[in-house]
Amino acid sequence: MSEDDAPVTRRRFLEMVGTAGGAAAVYETMVAMGMLAIPTAYAGPPDVSGSPGKGKTVAVLGAGVAGLTAALRLAKAGAKVTVYEASDRIGGRNFTVSSEGSDHRNVIRQTSRADQICTFSDDPRSQYFEAGCGRIPYHHVALLELCQELNVPLQPYIMETRANHFQADGAFDSKAVKNRQVANDTRGYIAELLAKAINKSGLDDTLSEKDRVALLSLLSTFGNISKDSKPPYKYFGSTRSGYVSDPGVAHPGEPVEPLEFDQLLKSRFWDHRFYQAEDYLWQTTLFHPVGGMRKIVDALRDAFGKDSVLTNRGVTRVTLAGGQVRIGFEKHPVETADYCISTIPLPLLAKRLDASFSAEYRQAVGTVKFAKTCKVGWQANSRFWEALRGPGKTNGPQIFGGISWIAHPITQVWYPSGDYFAPGPAVLTGAYNYDARDNPVATEFGKLELKPRLELALQGGERLHAEFRRQVPIEKGLSIAWQEVPHIEGGWAEWNHADKGHAAAYQRLLRPEQQFIVAGDQVSYLPGWMEGAVLSAYHAVNYALGLPIPKSTESQRDLPAPDSRSVTGAG
Amino acid sequence: MSEDDAPVTRRRFLEMVGTAGGAAAVYETMVAMGMLAIPTAYAGPPDVSGSPGKGKTVAVLGAGVAGLTAALRLAKAGAKVTVYEASDRIGGRNFTVSSEGSDHRNVIRQTSRADQICTFSDDPRSQYFEAGCGRIPYHHVALLELCQELNVPLQPYIMETRANHFQADGAFDSKAVKNRQVANDTRGYIAELLAKAINKSGLDDTLSEKDRVALLSLLSTFGNISKDSKPPYKYFGSTRSGYVSDPGVAHPGEPVEPLEFDQLLKSRFWDHRFYQAEDYLWQTTLFHPVGGMRKIVDALRDAFGKDSVLTNRGVTRVTLAGGQVRIGFEKHPVETADYCISTIPLPLLAKRLDASFSAEYRQAVGTVKFAKTCKVGWQANSRFWEALRGPGKTNGPQIFGGISWIAHPITQVWYPSGDYFAPGPAVLTGAYNYDARDNPVATEFGKLELKPRLELALQGGERLHAEFRRQVPIEKGLSIAWQEVPHIEGGWAEWNHADKGHAAAYQRLLRPEQQFIVAGDQVSYLPGWMEGAVLSAYHAVNYALGLPIPKSTESQRDLPAPDSRSVTGAG
Repeated sequence: MSEDDAPVTRRRFLEMVGTAGGAAAVYETMVAMGMLAIPTAYAGPPDVSGSPGKGKTVAVLGAGVAGLTAALRLAKAGAKVTVYEASDRIGGRNFTVSSEGSDHRNVIRQTSRADQICTFSDDPRSQYFEAGCGRIPYHHVALLELCQELNVPLQPYIMETRANHFQADGAFDSKAVKNRQVANDTRGYIAELLAKAINKSGLDDTLSEKDRVALLSLLSTFGNISKDSKPPYKYFGSTRSGYVSDPGVAHPGEPVEPLEFDQLLKSRFWDHRFYQAEDYLWQTTLFHPVGGMRKIVDALRDAFGKDSVLTNRGVTRVTLAGGQVRIGFEKHPVETADYCISTIPLPLLAKRLDASFSAEYRQAVGTVKFAKTCKVGWQANSRFWEALRGPGKTNGPQIFGGISWIAHPITQVWYPSGDYFAPGPAVLTGAYNYDARDNPVATEFGKLELKPRLELALQGGERLHAEFRRQVPIEKGLSIAWQEVPHIEGGWAEWNHADKGHAAAYQRLLRPEQQFIVAGDQVSYLPGWMEGAVLSAYHAVNYALGLPIPKSTESQRDLPAPDSRSVTGAG
Repeated sequence: MSEDDAPVTRRRFLEMVGTAGGAAAVYETMVAMGMLAIPTAYAGPPDVSGSPGKGKTVAVLGAGVAGLTAALRLAKAGAKVTVYEASDRIGGRNFTVSSEGSDHRNVIRQTSRADQICTFSDDPRSQYFEAGCGRIPYHHVALLELCQELNVPLQPYIMETRANHFQADGAFDSKAVKNRQVANDTRGYIAELLAKAINKSGLDDTLSEKDRVALLSLLSTFGNISKDSKPPYKYFGSTRSGYVSDPGVAHPGEPVEPLEFDQLLKSRFWDHRFYQAEDYLWQTTLFHPVGGMRKIVDALRDAFGKDSVLTNRGVTRVTLAGGQVRIGFEKHPVETADYCISTIPLPLLAKRLDASFSAEYRQAVGTVKFAKTCKVGWQANSRFWEALRGPGKTNGPQIFGGISWIAHPITQVWYPSGDYFAPGPAVLTGAYNYDARDNPVATEFGKLELKPRLELALQGGERLHAEFRRQVPIEKGLSIAWQEVPHIEGGWAEWNHADKGHAAAYQRLLRPEQQFIVAGDQVSYLPGWMEGAVLSAYHAVNYALGLPIPKSTESQRDLPAPDSRSVTGAG
C-alpha cells in the first residue's frame, strides 16, 4: 500500500485541511461532514431594506423594551406604528426610579398599597434605584448591538468582589464574613479532601499515576495547599482570604485564620446564590448603562418617535377581524391595525383575547404564570461600604460593587457599580428576592405592608453592616413587589422546562395567530432579560413584515419550554 | 451555686459584652483580654501639623511614586525639598507611554538598544501603554487615599473575564479555549472526583455523616453536578462553560461540550497564572486611573511643585558629612541637605554610597537584586477582541477587559479595561513576563533584539486570536525590558523571604544611617506595588521629620524579608 492510499483518520484529515486552508476551512469542512451543527446564533436585526412595512399599520401593545424595539424596527421598515402602553410610564420592567418625575418614573405604584414617591436627594442622574432589570451580560449580542446603535454608553457592572459579605445565622457566630474567606477557604478544604482521597488511593481506578501527579499539582494551586507542608496537602489558610492587618513597611501582614470547615458547611452559603457569578448569565464582564437602564428605554423612544407612544392606553379586548386586528381600550376609541404585536404579560393578555382567537391559541397564552419578585432601594447618606479604613486601626469594608448574600428574606444587597469614591449619598439595592421551591420568600415579602417591609430589609442590611441603620434613612426607602405592579403583575414568565404543556404552549406562541403575535422576554429562552425582549421583538417583526423566519423556528417541533428558574437565578 | 456565681466561658462573656455594648465593645474587650493583637494597619499619612520640617532641607533622590510622595509630605511639613531624578522623565516604574512627548514619556530607552518612540495614532489620552505598574488593589489604602486627596479619578480594572482565553500547545489541539471552560470544567471534575471519593467511603475517617451530606450538596452547586444524574454526581458539562450557539427565541441554546479532563491536566493551565485573580493582590475590585497611571505621577508633581523636581540629575556619590548629607551629580555641582531620602534602586545605590557609610549599611543596601521583567505594548487597529459576532453566524470573542494566559514567552495579554465598545484603535499589553524558578523567560526575552522580540510577541498573540497579525501592526509595537532601563535596571527588588541574609538586610534598611534613609516599594512588603512606595515614603518621612515611628518598627527584630516572587505574581 503506497502512502497515498493509506487510510486517514478523521482528525488527521482535518489537520490536513487546516494546514492547507486554515481554521475557516476546518470549520466549513467539519460542518460539511456533519461534525458541527451550524449555529443558529443571532445574525442581526430584521432586514428592513426595501421598506417591507410600507403601507402597513402595526399596533404594538406595551412600551417596554420589546415593544419599543419592535416599534423602532417596524418604523424603519416603513410601517405606520403606534405603541399603546397601559401605564403612565414607559419601560415596563426596565424601571430606573429617581426623583426626576417628568416621565412618571419617580413613582412606584402597587395595587392595594399607597404610591411611593422617590425622595432621593442630590442629582437624579446618579441617584437612582433599578427597580427592574439591572445588568447586561457580555454575550447578549442583540441588546449590546442595540445600545451601540442608539449610542447608550455602558460601564461594567461588578457582580462579585472578594470584599463582599455573606451572613447566615447559626454559622460564624452569626457574623458577616468576607466573600474572599468563604470562596478561598472552601477551595482550600475541597483541595485538601480530594488530595487526601487521592493519596489514600481512593481513586486509583479512576486516575492514572500520571493524572494523579498532575491533579495534585493542580489542587495545590487551586486550593493553595502544598505537598511540602506538614502534613502534606493540608489547608492551613491562605492570604487569598485576606489579612487581619495588611502588609506594610515594618509589618509583614497578619493573615486571617481560615474559617472552620464545619462552619462553612453549616452556613450552607452555596444555597444562598454565593456562586451565582459563575453562571453564564452573571459572569464577568457584565454591563449597565451610565445613568441607568432607563437610558435604553429613552434612546429607543427617541429613535422611534415619542409622539407615537401613547400612555394610559389600557387594552380591554383584542379581536381578529377580517385580516386585521381590532383593539379595544379603556376610555379610548377602538383602533384597528393590519398587524398587532402584543408584549402584554401573557396572564393579563389571556383575559383580553376574545372568541375570535382559537381556543388552542388562547390556551397557549393562558398557560404560563408570572413569577413573584421583590426589590428594595435605599439611598444611604454616604458610601460607607467603600470606606477604606474602619474605626481605630482596622480596615473598612472596602466594597466596590458586587453583591453581599445573606440567609435572610432580603437575599442580597447590591452595591453601586459606578461613581466609586464619590462623596455624598448613594443608592443600594437593599433586597432582591424570588420564591424558591421550598420558600415563598417573595410572596411573603410582598404581602407585608410597606413600612414593615422596609423595616425587615433594614434588619437584613444591619446583619451585613453594623452601621446600616445609622447610614440608611428608612424614610427614603422604596420597595417594589412586581406581583403587585399594575399592568405587569410579576417579574417574568415562569416557564417550567420540564412541563410538556408548557413546551407545547411555548411552541405555539412562537407562531402568530393570523395577524397577531406575542413578544417580549416571556416568549424567549431568556425570561427576565432584555436580550430576550429584543430577540423576541425581532422575531415578531419578521412575522409582521412577512420577512423570512429563521429556519429553526419552523422545523423544531420539539422545543422545550424555557427554564425560567435557572435563567433568572431563582433556580 | 447561684446563677450569678456560675463560671462563664470566654465566648459567653463576650456575648454578654456584645449584648451590652455592641461590636465595638467586644472588639475592645478582646484586645484587652489579649485575644486580638492590635493591628498595625495604615493609620494615615505622616502628621505634619505644626510644620515639623520647618528650617530643614531634604534631598529626595528619584522622582518615582515614592520620591514624589515623600516630597509632597515633606513640603507640607514646611521643609525645603528638592527631588533629583537621573532620567529625563519622572515616574520611574509608573510609566504610561503615549505619543504625547512633552514629558519624555513617549520614549522607551534601553541600554544597548535603539530608543523606541511611541507612534500610536489617535488621542494620546486614551491610546497609552502601561509599561510599568498597571493596577491598584481595593485594599491599597494609602495609595487609594492619595488618589482621593489628589483628585485622580479611578475606574475598575477588570482582571479576569470568563471570555478570556488560555492557550497551550499539546492540549486542546493547541487551540485557545475560553477561561469559562477551563474554570468551570475543572470545578466540575474536581467536584465529581471528590463526590466519588466520599461515596466510596474513602473519607469516612475525616467526615461525619452530616458533613458528608452537606459537602455533597456544596459540591453539586460548586461543580454543577447532580445527585439525580445517571450516574449520580458525574460531571456532564455545564452552561457555565458557555454555548456553541446562545439561547434565543426559537433556539434553546446549544451548550459546549466539556473539555476533557486529561486535556485540562495536560495543559497545566494552573502553572500559567490562570488562578492569579484569586490572590489577594489581584482580586476584584482592582482600579486604574482614567487616563493612565501617569495621572498619579502628574498629580503628585503638580501638588508638590514641578520647579523643585530636577531631571537629568544622575547621582554619582552620596556622603555622610557632619550631620548632613552631601550628594554628587553628573555634570552638576554637589548639593548638601540636612536629610536625604533615596529611592534609587538599591543595586544602583550600592555603587554610590561612599566610605562615610558603615560597611554594615552598605552591605544591607547591596544585598538585594532587581528582577528582570518585560512587557510589550501594541496599538491594534480596532477592538477585535470585543467583537460580539464572528464570521458567519458565530460568536465573536466578546472579551471586555481581563487577561488571556498562554504557555508562551509572552505569558499574558491584557485587554483594555475602559473605553469599551469605542471605535478606532486601542492598546493591548501584548506580553508581561518574569523569570520563573526554572524558566528565565524574561531574561531571554530581554536579550532579543527589538524586532524579533516583537515578532515573537506577535506569534504569541496569534495563538490567542487568529486575526492578531492582521489587526496589530508590528511597526507600532513597543517593548520594554526593565532590566535594560537606565537608572532603574529591573522591575522590583527580588527579596527572598526564606533568606536570613535578606531578612537582616531588610531590617537594617528600615532604619536610617545617620541622616540618610532608603525608600520605595523596594523597602516594603509590597515590592512592585505603588502602595509599597507610598507606605515606604511615609515611613522615611517620619524619620526625616523626627516624627514618632510606629512601634512595630523598632520592636520587630524578627521581621522576615518580603516575599517578592509571591507579591509580584512571579512566585
